[in-house]
Amino acid sequence: MPSLQPIGAQHPKVRQVQSIQRNSAPNPHRLFIAEGLWAHNLLLEHDIPIDTFFWSPEAAYGDEAHKRAEQLAQRADRAYEISAKTLERISERDRPDGLLSLAPLPRWEPEDIDLPPDALVMVADGMEIPGNLGTLIRTLDACRVDCLILTNRRTRLTHPKVFRASQGMVLTTPTLEFGQPEQAVDWLRRNNFDVFLADTEDARNYRRYRYGGRRTAFVLGAEKYGIPKAWYQPHVKKVFVPMLGRADSLNVSVSAAVLLYEARAQKEQW
Amino acid sequence: MPSLQPIGAQHPKVRQVQSIQRNSAPNPHRLFIAEGLWAHNLLLEHDIPIDTFFWSPEAAYGDEAHKRAEQLAQRADRAYEISAKTLERISERDRPDGLLSLAPLPRWEPEDIDLPPDALVMVADGMEIPGNLGTLIRTLDACRVDCLILTNRRTRLTHPKVFRASQGMVLTTPTLEFGQPEQAVDWLRRNNFDVFLADTEDARNYRRYRYGGRRTAFVLGAEKYGIPKAWYQPHVKKVFVPMLGRADSLNVSVSAAVLLYEARAQKEQW
Repeated sequence: MPSLQPIGAQHPKVRQVQSIQRNSAPNPHRLFIAEGLWAHNLLLEHDIPIDTFFWSPEAAYGDEAHKRAEQLAQRADRAYEISAKTLERISERDRPDGLLSLAPLPRWEPEDIDLPPDALVMVADGMEIPGNLGTLIRTLDACRVDCLILTNRRTRLTHPKVFRASQGMVLTTPTLEFGQPEQAVDWLRRNNFDVFLADTEDARNYRRYRYGGRRTAFVLGAEKYGIPKAWYQPHVKKVFVPMLGRADSLNVSVSAAVLLYEARAQKEQW
Repeated sequence: MPSLQPIGAQHPKVRQVQSIQRNSAPNPHRLFIAEGLWAHNLLLEHDIPIDTFFWSPEAAYGDEAHKRAEQLAQRADRAYEISAKTLERISERDRPDGLLSLAPLPRWEPEDIDLPPDALVMVADGMEIPGNLGTLIRTLDACRVDCLILTNRRTRLTHPKVFRASQGMVLTTPTLEFGQPEQAVDWLRRNNFDVFLADTEDARNYRRYRYGGRRTAFVLGAEKYGIPKAWYQPHVKKVFVPMLGRADSLNVSVSAAVLLYEARAQKEQW
């Protein structure tokens, strides 16, 4: 491995990592922080460009880290060596393993999404807790949802917890962002989706609808903020997942899984 | 409200709260820590006995806290007044609201569980992450599962995250613990359950089984430890939830929700 330029804790790129962690500065390139062997294997596997690679040989354990470091240093736009002490300042892990990168989160535009005739899409409004968003993305991956649409997003996709809770699937699950719900309503209408709004009033049990052979979108609102008015349209159907117990709500990923698996099962005729 | 005995940070009951938080001493009465108005409303609603109630009027905001404090002080075996400073030492909240209690988690025995002819039961082996166990319990509540069976448990039910993530449903969801999986296998056999083991090899899609009109138990193993051998019995059927994406596993609550809602839907003929 060719030697890398050593830098210290005051270097602008080290400070950039900290500002992204604290979300204290604009992040126009949607850089996120990948830490450790597992995350870096994902970057390589999914061919994600790397803005900056930080390598701390004194913190590394195991041969695989050294092998990956070489590949990552080659691949990255910039690669630096840092001390274990500097790594500890920018790491959120208990036992950092020498590898840390800044990489841009892939960005999808509406025209990038290839929609099959029986497409399956999830819309989530007002997502606020990064761990919940991550778990939702992991669930969407399992159901091979064609895309996730976010409206009124209140957490950033670059949050480290989104990456971790999604098991890195935030890198591969196509995600569209519409600032206003109206834009999502329009996009779904133009693309001939049947739209099902998860709501409790005047709604039908999710098993009572037919989802096979056509495009299906489910819309989940945030408990805290309710469902934006734009979704209450005559062509939007209302659906509910029965809650038979004492609690009055389901975790968003759990609701999503129940709805999406029903639709997927009908589409695939399981 | 009658005045309560003021106690300080060195009082044995205050120290007991800390030892339960740190899990640093035996806890034979399965005491858990309830914090704040929401949790205390649940204690009252579900008629949970209260071992010790700590009340810090200087930390309280709002009339409801004062009203509840009176009820709680009456109900508790012991009630003490503590300073806001002492409360802060034993609170895990950012902004404690004056109410904190030690209460025993309800305990169920196998003979307490009233099993209907179409009972639905979830078995979880090797649960390790308290937040996951809590979310699982919230999901079981929503599906009105008759009981949760835990084997090889690696986190305690009294962990504050179990309480929070379950939205308090750990107080009302019947839970049986069997140290050894063999005991759970026996109990299910004696009670005429169809047992479905979530596994990927030689398994059938979860939609291909019939769950209506009979007793159903699903068994989920921990990713990390695999499924104990005791479950591989001729009468145990294997079931899988298809994962169509790039990640190789589903969150345990998500798998549980997909399986349980399918079974519930068939039982209820949704």
